[in-house]
Amino acid sequence: MTTFSEATALAADGATAELDPGWAVGDKLHGGYLMAVLGRAVAGRSELPHLLAMTTTFLRPPAPGPATVTVDLLRAGRTAGQYRARLEQDGRPCAEALVTQGTLDSSAAWWGRAKVPDLPAEEDCLRLTAEAPGSPFTVPLLDLVEHRLDPACLGFAVGQPSQDGRVAGWLRLADGADWDPLSLLIATDPAPPVSLTLGITGWAPTLSLTAYVRRLPAPGPVRVLMTSSEITSGRMDETVEVWDSTGALVAQATQLAGVRV
Amino acid sequence: MTTFSEATALAADGATAELDPGWAVGDKLHGGYLMAVLGRAVAGRSELPHLLAMTTTFLRPPAPGPATVTVDLLRAGRTAGQYRARLEQDGRPCAEALVTQGTLDSSAAWWGRAKVPDLPAEEDCLRLTAEAPGSPFTVPLLDLVEHRLDPACLGFAVGQPSQDGRVAGWLRLADGADWDPLSLLIATDPAPPVSLTLGITGWAPTLSLTAYVRRLPAPGPVRVLMTSSEITSGRMDETVEVWDSTGALVAQATQLAGVRV
Repeated sequence: MTTFSEATALAADGATAELDPGWAVGDKLHGGYLMAVLGRAVAGRSELPHLLAMTTTFLRPPAPGPATVTVDLLRAGRTAGQYRARLEQDGRPCAEALVTQGTLDSSAAWWGRAKVPDLPAEEDCLRLTAEAPGSPFTVPLLDLVEHRLDPACLGFAVGQPSQDGRVAGWLRLADGADWDPLSLLIATDPAPPVSLTLGITGWAPTLSLTAYVRRLPAPGPVRVLMTSSEITSGRMDETVEVWDSTGALVAQATQLAGVRV
Repeated sequence: MTTFSEATALAADGATAELDPGWAVGDKLHGGYLMAVLGRAVAGRSELPHLLAMTTTFLRPPAPGPATVTVDLLRAGRTAGQYRARLEQDGRPCAEALVTQGTLDSSAAWWGRAKVPDLPAEEDCLRLTAEAPGSPFTVPLLDLVEHRLDPACLGFAVGQPSQDGRVAGWLRLADGADWDPLSLLIATDPAPPVSLTLGITGWAPTLSLTAYVRRLPAPGPVRVLMTSSEITSGRMDETVEVWDSTGALVAQATQLAGVRV
């Protein structure tokens, strides 16, 4: 098993990644994983320690193996640095990102109205497996990122898709590492897509994903809630909240994905 | 009065914009306006007609007057084209965006769970004025984009800030034009920021704003609902839904902004 840290490491040149085949959904590398590789390259270039915001546009899926990451500074500020990061393979661009880097802490909210998602205790949720009976493809990612989902989201797996448009559960890194601002990017793109819970079995390729990291996560599992507003004209939005084990909001994300209905 | 169309026009070279001083909040040009200028430049380069998704990182505020827009194609697909767009002034980058271009229609949702926001009829809402008594700055934008807000959001204006974190109202372009996928970018960044409704009177500079346009809007005003999840460590998220006069979801957005509390 490759740990998150190993799978996102860059060579000494700070620009060469070795994309790991385990961090995949079907035969495609996971979007959150590619974001984490880009985010790690930015962190290596910045004087500010943490990723605050990142939008990644996915251009073409890279294959496992060597890839090149290029980081350009757009603006260096005292409290925020802004960067462009680009992932290429065989000279072809695979993803491009805009990243804001800064400093996170564990402060309480000055004001907030978000509520920690209501879901069963971790031990009452069901762990997804990489090879599920009837699944259209294997999900190697699920061996590396433990997804324990609210059984209420899992009707699709027994031929009873829901109309709720909700995926909720507990996530842990299988290597035992605590979550950090980079690995939280993985949690902002959980499995399965909302479309699958609605009975759409095809691939839902992300066009663009935006993640905000709001504070340093406490040790322990995170709770993830993913919802969608609409599936219209072959496109689906998905919104994700990630909450740490103390019930603090640690990350938020939104993505636009393609679906075939 | 400069119309939206005039204020976002590019010179015959397709790369020179004349940033209009009217599209401003205080002495800063409005983020949605700058996004529309970038979006128009992308549309001029693409074979696909409509903006589907756009994330803009704001680097430094440009001044009214000439600015240069550079558009780079990242990937041309049959149904989606992906671009990088950059706004510069006096050789300094002011904003950079990732844009997905495609084709919108007016289809009904295949599935949806979003609900049109509950707010009073347009005539029962209160129109914001560019120069409000007690406001820390003038908002010229409000002469060009009519904001009629739910009175329930306006306690802050009489010294009674709310704890709701909600801004809701009806928007129309004062030039009488119907909304289109580019002008909807203006509506994804409505006034005032949620922070002001909570009693934070300072500037809330957008670090990054992500907008999705979901369908072609019907003629007439749009309804806008903006909420926030949390203000933590000097940063605020804001989420926006834009609904057309028929009650269809036409755009969504999320932004991360700085606030001083």
